[in-house]
Amino acid sequence: MLLADIANLLGGELIGDGNVDLHDVAEYERASPRDLSYVESAKKLSTHSDAGALIVPQGLETNRPAISTKNPRLSFARAVLLFRPPRKFQPGIDARAFVSDAARVGDGVYVGPFASIADGVVVGDDSCIGAGAHVGENVKIGSGSVIHPNCVLYADVEIGSRVILHAGVVVGADGFGYIPDEEGRFFKYPQTGTVIIEDDVEIGANSTIDRATLRETRIGRGTKIDNQVQIAHNVVIGEDCILAGQVGISGSVRIGRGVMMGGRVGVVDHVEIGDGAKLGADTGVLYSLEGGKVYMHNPATEVRDARRRIAVLRNLPRLSRKVNELERKIGKLEL
Amino acid sequence: MLLADIANLLGGELIGDGNVDLHDVAEYERASPRDLSYVESAKKLSTHSDAGALIVPQGLETNRPAISTKNPRLSFARAVLLFRPPRKFQPGIDARAFVSDAARVGDGVYVGPFASIADGVVVGDDSCIGAGAHVGENVKIGSGSVIHPNCVLYADVEIGSRVILHAGVVVGADGFGYIPDEEGRFFKYPQTGTVIIEDDVEIGANSTIDRATLRETRIGRGTKIDNQVQIAHNVVIGEDCILAGQVGISGSVRIGRGVMMGGRVGVVDHVEIGDGAKLGADTGVLYSLEGGKVYMHNPATEVRDARRRIAVLRNLPRLSRKVNELERKIGKLEL
Amino acid sequence: MLLADIANLLGGELIGDGNVDLHDVAEYERASPRDLSYVESAKKLSTHSDAGALIVPQGLETNRPAISTKNPRLSFARAVLLFRPPRKFQPGIDARAFVSDAARVGDGVYVGPFASIADGVVVGDDSCIGAGAHVGENVKIGSGSVIHPNCVLYADVEIGSRVILHAGVVVGADGFGYIPDEEGRFFKYPQTGTVIIEDDVEIGANSTIDRATLRETRIGRGTKIDNQVQIAHNVVIGEDCILAGQVGISGSVRIGRGVMMGGRVGVVDHVEIGDGAKLGADTGVLYSLEGGKVYMHNPATEVRDARRRIAVLRNLPRLSRKVNELERKIGKLEL
Repeated sequence: MLLADIANLLGGELIGDGNVDLHDVAEYERASPRDLSYVESAKKLSTHSDAGALIVPQGLETNRPAISTKNPRLSFARAVLLFRPPRKFQPGIDARAFVSDAARVGDGVYVGPFASIADGVVVGDDSCIGAGAHVGENVKIGSGSVIHPNCVLYADVEIGSRVILHAGVVVGADGFGYIPDEEGRFFKYPQTGTVIIEDDVEIGANSTIDRATLRETRIGRGTKIDNQVQIAHNVVIGEDCILAGQVGISGSVRIGRGVMMGGRVGVVDHVEIGDGAKLGADTGVLYSLEGGKVYMHNPATEVRDARRRIAVLRNLPRLSRKVNELERKIGKLEL
Repeated sequence: MLLADIANLLGGELIGDGNVDLHDVAEYERASPRDLSYVESAKKLSTHSDAGALIVPQGLETNRPAISTKNPRLSFARAVLLFRPPRKFQPGIDARAFVSDAARVGDGVYVGPFASIADGVVVGDDSCIGAGAHVGENVKIGSGSVIHPNCVLYADVEIGSRVILHAGVVVGADGFGYIPDEEGRFFKYPQTGTVIIEDDVEIGANSTIDRATLRETRIGRGTKIDNQVQIAHNVVIGEDCILAGQVGISGSVRIGRGVMMGGRVGVVDHVEIGDGAKLGADTGVLYSLEGGKVYMHNPATEVRDARRRIAVLRNLPRLSRKVNELERKIGKLEL
Repeated sequence: MLLADIANLLGGELIGDGNVDLHDVAEYERASPRDLSYVESAKKLSTHSDAGALIVPQGLETNRPAISTKNPRLSFARAVLLFRPPRKFQPGIDARAFVSDAARVGDGVYVGPFASIADGVVVGDDSCIGAGAHVGENVKIGSGSVIHPNCVLYADVEIGSRVILHAGVVVGADGFGYIPDEEGRFFKYPQTGTVIIEDDVEIGANSTIDRATLRETRIGRGTKIDNQVQIAHNVVIGEDCILAGQVGISGSVRIGRGVMMGGRVGVVDHVEIGDGAKLGADTGVLYSLEGGKVYMHNPATEVRDARRRIAVLRNLPRLSRKVNELERKIGKLEL
């Protein structure tokens, strides 16, 4: 591809020779003269690269052929799609799939081998159900969604449009609840609610989203969830949140919009996390958290205080020795 | 359903008009006049609800139509089943399933599309093997058990009666053990034991229970395990335990009866946890724990001491400042 | 089997009666006269066992029939294979599997029912693809590898020889990366790289290994990974590492050779861990770590310092009380 054409497609400004012929994208340090790469700062630009051309921030000068844009990283991500277009699935229902006669499947849908689609299911246009995935009774799936192989959607759950569920995701398994009965044995609390996954959500491999007890577990539009995340029953997550790998959200938690959680954050049941809260990796949430703030550590604490706490924590043996020393000195003074 | 009939079915005492016609169950705050709900205390009863009728504790007065029972929450859970009866599966072996001629499948069993049942398997009456589940050679499954879609049971494991395995559960994968050989490479320790899951156990989606090295990994009767829990080889868990989501139990751990673990508890290998121990979310178990006590924090500590520790921990910067202040004062006194 | 024959097969020295007839292997305490067991120390040998014969360390005297070897535990592991040979799979492609005409499958390969093998796949000799596993387009699998049931290999990933992937493993799902676009919505960063799993790697049930953004995620030869481990995009793990259950490795982390991680170690993104580092269970890695050292706690700290810190941490309330006492004493002195 010619640099000039890429500039056009990305809506950026061409700098220098538009006839540079590029064959791939690459990281700055590893790019060859046939690769397009990007920088976000002058500092990076001062280090070596063999890249044939760069995407640079507006106003950053370079004597290399380049495209300048407002957001080079975003532009580069878009350029990746130009050089490495995603594999298109071929619409059609594989002869080895099972699609119930009582299911409705839209146009342009792909259903892979050994996928099973039960009675009452509705699949929107251009969606893709991977090999071995199971779509339970009355599940609704919007259009343009991709259900990767071996996902399991329990009966009645609702999946929006342009949703991506990676392999092994389980949506709608029973929430975890028991009550000791008269003999002290656990009576299984019926989990009769559902799960609603709104549009543009992506969920990572082997994550699990439990169905609600009576009403719904809900994942808000545009929210992105990484691998091996556990979302318990009755949880409601707002729009445009980010939950990194191995996060665990206990029952009935309410999470606002635009909340970001690092890896393995854990949240106890029935708390609320306000809009725009940011939680560092491994944060343990024991109480409700106000929105718009940054938290870390366990129990979750605003970042400035948490950093101080961690600093003392790291030097705890020194603090302890200091106290012993003071004790000794005071003993002397008391004599 | 008429309130009088529900009272009868639940074995509770009718209070007020038995002819109230109810159509569903709902949480107290969200109930409509067509819904049955419940309260456990007078305090709750003093807040607003539009519920058409309530289940209340014996002795609690209300002028609303009600049913009084010893345990309203348990009665309500039972009422949920009346209004929302669980979906019954239709017995029969799907034409797309594979059931070995050398397997024995009881009466009233359902086998879903693309499930595979290997040689020597025995499935008891009224059990259900979901779509895409794999049941390995010689696996024994009791009666009335539900193996949800895409579970994998490795060869030779034993599953009791009325067991529920949610989607993606893996039972009987090899335990994790290697020994450096003469060349320093890892020799895989053979994992030749099995897994026994006793009656009335429920295991959450994508949880994994490894097979033992020589003998057995065992999950005791009535124990309930949440999603994404990892149980390593040789672990023995007693009856009626509760393990919440993302718990991890290392090899050869022994857990007594009636032990309760909150989310993401971690237990190192070869320790014992006594009957009735309760472990708060995120507890880290490094040593054996006596039964009958409540623990939290990492390393696991009895709750009173752990709470004190956490209180100091939260204020660690203040403690550190105080020590610095004392140091200053002592310096002055020493002059 | 006769003890003399076992001694021969294990390359150990026979001590006493070689005609002892043995039928199984067992742990020392549980062995019967028909069982072979082992000890590693004189201390153990002084406790009771009914074992018919033992494997003992060279130089350790016993009046029981025995085999002496350099490494009794390793020899015993090998003896387990003699008494309990692993189940051999019958080569052949199950009639219910789907193997694309555009895939190449070697000799002696087993493909289970409802496994699907897409266009362009290459499977080496003597490999095994379990029931319901999905092998995406152009995946390469070496020889003698075992892909257990319901694994999912996304397109283009490469699996070496003698690799074992346990049930539910997902290799090659998209890495987790988004960039806010002009409207503040998350633009999905294309994940166009691959995953390379080198020879002799074993990966536990329901673990997930994400594909790289541009280049590759790589698991080095001989590395062993336990259940429910999450490896993010662009991670490179060296040879002969051990990662125990529920470990989580964030994006672009580089791990050297021979690194050992206990259960649930967590590593933040973009750090490096040097060759031979050992990390205790639950270690939290926030910064790069030098090789050849032992770390524990969060943040990861060399073991001696970490132990001191934990000792103070456990007694934090006492430290706090002591400080209060000193404060009181100083108050008196200041008067």
